[in-house]
Amino acid sequence: MRKLITNALIITVDQTFAIYKNGMVIIDDDVISYVGEINQAIIDQSAVDEVIDAEGNIIMPGLVNAHTHLPMTLFSGYGSGLPLKEWLEDKIWPAESKLTPNDIYIGTKMGIMQMLLSGTTCFLDMYYFIDDMARAIDEMGIRAVLSRAVMDIGGFDYRLKESIDSIKKYEEHKMIDIMVGPHAVYTNSKEGLQQILEVAKKYNKSMHVHVSETEDEVKNCNNEHGMTPVEYFDELGLFDVPFVAAHCVHVTDNDIKIMANKKVNAVHCPTSNMKLASGIAPIQQMIDAGINVALGTDGSSSNNNVDMFEEMHVAALIGKMKNGDPTALNAKTVIQMATINGAKALGVDEKVGSIEKGKHADLIMMDMKSPFSQPDREFLDHIVYSMGRGQVKMTMIAGKVLQKNGIIKNSDFKKLREQFNNCVDRLC
Amino acid sequence: MRKLITNALIITVDQTFAIYKNGMVIIDDDVISYVGEINQAIIDQSAVDEVIDAEGNIIMPGLVNAHTHLPMTLFSGYGSGLPLKEWLEDKIWPAESKLTPNDIYIGTKMGIMQMLLSGTTCFLDMYYFIDDMARAIDEMGIRAVLSRAVMDIGGFDYRLKESIDSIKKYEEHKMIDIMVGPHAVYTNSKEGLQQILEVAKKYNKSMHVHVSETEDEVKNCNNEHGMTPVEYFDELGLFDVPFVAAHCVHVTDNDIKIMANKKVNAVHCPTSNMKLASGIAPIQQMIDAGINVALGTDGSSSNNNVDMFEEMHVAALIGKMKNGDPTALNAKTVIQMATINGAKALGVDEKVGSIEKGKHADLIMMDMKSPFSQPDREFLDHIVYSMGRGQVKMTMIAGKVLQKNGIIKNSDFKKLREQFNNCVDRLC
Repeated sequence: MRKLITNALIITVDQTFAIYKNGMVIIDDDVISYVGEINQAIIDQSAVDEVIDAEGNIIMPGLVNAHTHLPMTLFSGYGSGLPLKEWLEDKIWPAESKLTPNDIYIGTKMGIMQMLLSGTTCFLDMYYFIDDMARAIDEMGIRAVLSRAVMDIGGFDYRLKESIDSIKKYEEHKMIDIMVGPHAVYTNSKEGLQQILEVAKKYNKSMHVHVSETEDEVKNCNNEHGMTPVEYFDELGLFDVPFVAAHCVHVTDNDIKIMANKKVNAVHCPTSNMKLASGIAPIQQMIDAGINVALGTDGSSSNNNVDMFEEMHVAALIGKMKNGDPTALNAKTVIQMATINGAKALGVDEKVGSIEKGKHADLIMMDMKSPFSQPDREFLDHIVYSMGRGQVKMTMIAGKVLQKNGIIKNSDFKKLREQFNNCVDRLC
Repeated sequence: MRKLITNALIITVDQTFAIYKNGMVIIDDDVISYVGEINQAIIDQSAVDEVIDAEGNIIMPGLVNAHTHLPMTLFSGYGSGLPLKEWLEDKIWPAESKLTPNDIYIGTKMGIMQMLLSGTTCFLDMYYFIDDMARAIDEMGIRAVLSRAVMDIGGFDYRLKESIDSIKKYEEHKMIDIMVGPHAVYTNSKEGLQQILEVAKKYNKSMHVHVSETEDEVKNCNNEHGMTPVEYFDELGLFDVPFVAAHCVHVTDNDIKIMANKKVNAVHCPTSNMKLASGIAPIQQMIDAGINVALGTDGSSSNNNVDMFEEMHVAALIGKMKNGDPTALNAKTVIQMATINGAKALGVDEKVGSIEKGKHADLIMMDMKSPFSQPDREFLDHIVYSMGRGQVKMTMIAGKVLQKNGIIKNSDFKKLREQFNNCVDRLC
């Protein structure tokens, strides 16, 4: 099956950030076999099965949400505006304790609906009930990296076993990778972290951890271990495996040095950090130090959705504010954070994250003719500051068109919405 | 002409913030004659000409953009990411010097397109070529308050005369009000401000001014006058007329006290303040002091659009961050800022800003069934944090449906887009 996308303005997000103003992409099954300016000779030689005319549209890589808890779509808006402690103890934790496999499946599916509508083609998750998430992922066709949250409270061994089971079960899965997911410094003991590290090493897996999200977390870690979470993790050797550090709000200069040296990936979650008033991560400083910084929505419970266009917008604005510098986090940087940097963090950058020959065709089409895309010459800036999910006219994953003009294939949304609200009524 | 909107979830934003879960609104020509729970008896007695079934939708007041420069839609994204001085001196000012009446008309029209699509029904502007803006406003049917920017540089008398002319010309206009608009403390002399004040008093008009937007502005004012801009304006008596202070980023505790005492309206423009790295206004503190705080996008040149849903979202997030408190600027407060508080600042709250009997029907319909509106029980939070312009299914102004399902009546958008990009190509 050969598809041709033509007449497009293509933002490749490759190493040179090449942009083709009259571009085309050829896709063989799920893999890109050509990207560049329109080349009629190549078209003539190709037996194309399907032509997608992208005239007046941008084609860019699908967005990579590098930190989320997708089933928490169920808790979007729940207890919003409460102080953190009450929000967690009176709302989120009691509701989570009631979760069933079906809730996870339904919540994940709703989250994926949002993702396909808002141009996200791949995500990194940390939660539990991995198989029920995988069922929704398989049905919807999105790409994902999943990590079973492991913590000491409530059965470490059981959780680690589920984590190992998931590694084995999805070894051959084309669209799902697995990471190990120790939850955080305040929920995992030293011994637990060491055991998890052994699993990561044994199975050659990356680690996905919440790092320095709040001031209290860092303060308590300093009190207990005489070190910051980053220093502590470094000492335990956790950075010897590929490592995804979500949040990194309260990292020190020394933390940043360590992260750069050990090639730790950072994930910026500005909406969640602001909604919970946790703080603002020093993103420009991390980028300047050479750290790969990706972007994530965190769970919908502190966001209220998983729209990465909103996340790019907020990241670009707060980045300038944090630095007192309107040149910080420019549009190009933020687009890289939301695409190729995410793919790097997830360890899938050889497959996706940019539009390049040999990579899988995870890409989106953005409307350059909408009133929110004008003047059209400023398209790069508009992607970050003005266009949004409403301009995502198509979402393609592995060469398959999963969303077109706001319609998601093979989905009975009315039924899903009812199931979803029924779950919420029982949980919340 | 009697319209009935029924089966709606109505957020009135009246004084009690009344919400009707199975509500209806009756509109006679342009005025609301009933709002409340569905009352079949009233429906039976009414000879309704048109029924709008709003099942599964929210009906809420149209949004009020309380500070913008709408023709600057032309400069959206232009020079973005440059340091402030270069951005102004090398990009914006040279482009502005080339503006023609037709540019203003086209730029305003594109801005109004964005407004109608994103649920804004009324705005306060400061720019020039008032008549050309008015032409676009008349054609599109939106409500506006316009102020001709007056400053010393380049002809104070000429500008003040245009301002007075506009007051007279639009005296009887149903949809356009006029304010006087001294630009700022750093562009207006004491004598100029006094003359403008006399005009405001003589014609019974409000004043619309940029106030304490940047640190430099406050520092320079302190150096020159030994006072902050707020203290200086107070001493000059400017607050003796209704006053709209745009930005208020760098206001002191004493400034806030003065503003509260003198009933000065503040307009928060968080996106612009962040994009230009100007700072974050102490909004929760101003609200706590009893100041009426509205919300504005500022010009698209520092935003990149005039979408008030994005502005609500950013305001809610940065408000929490600024205060280190997740309970600051909750959804209800932010919705009030974007509706009734805006109407108060603009002096049109007896006419619009909430859905109440006797007010004009400026209202919008929001899709509660979209994936970004789930779970539907959290609708108030979702309006601020998750729903967006994509969920605005209808925009009604003065009882007329001007936008429905993304289609704007009587507009040739393709032609407008071409004209708009032609203007930009000449200007930028």
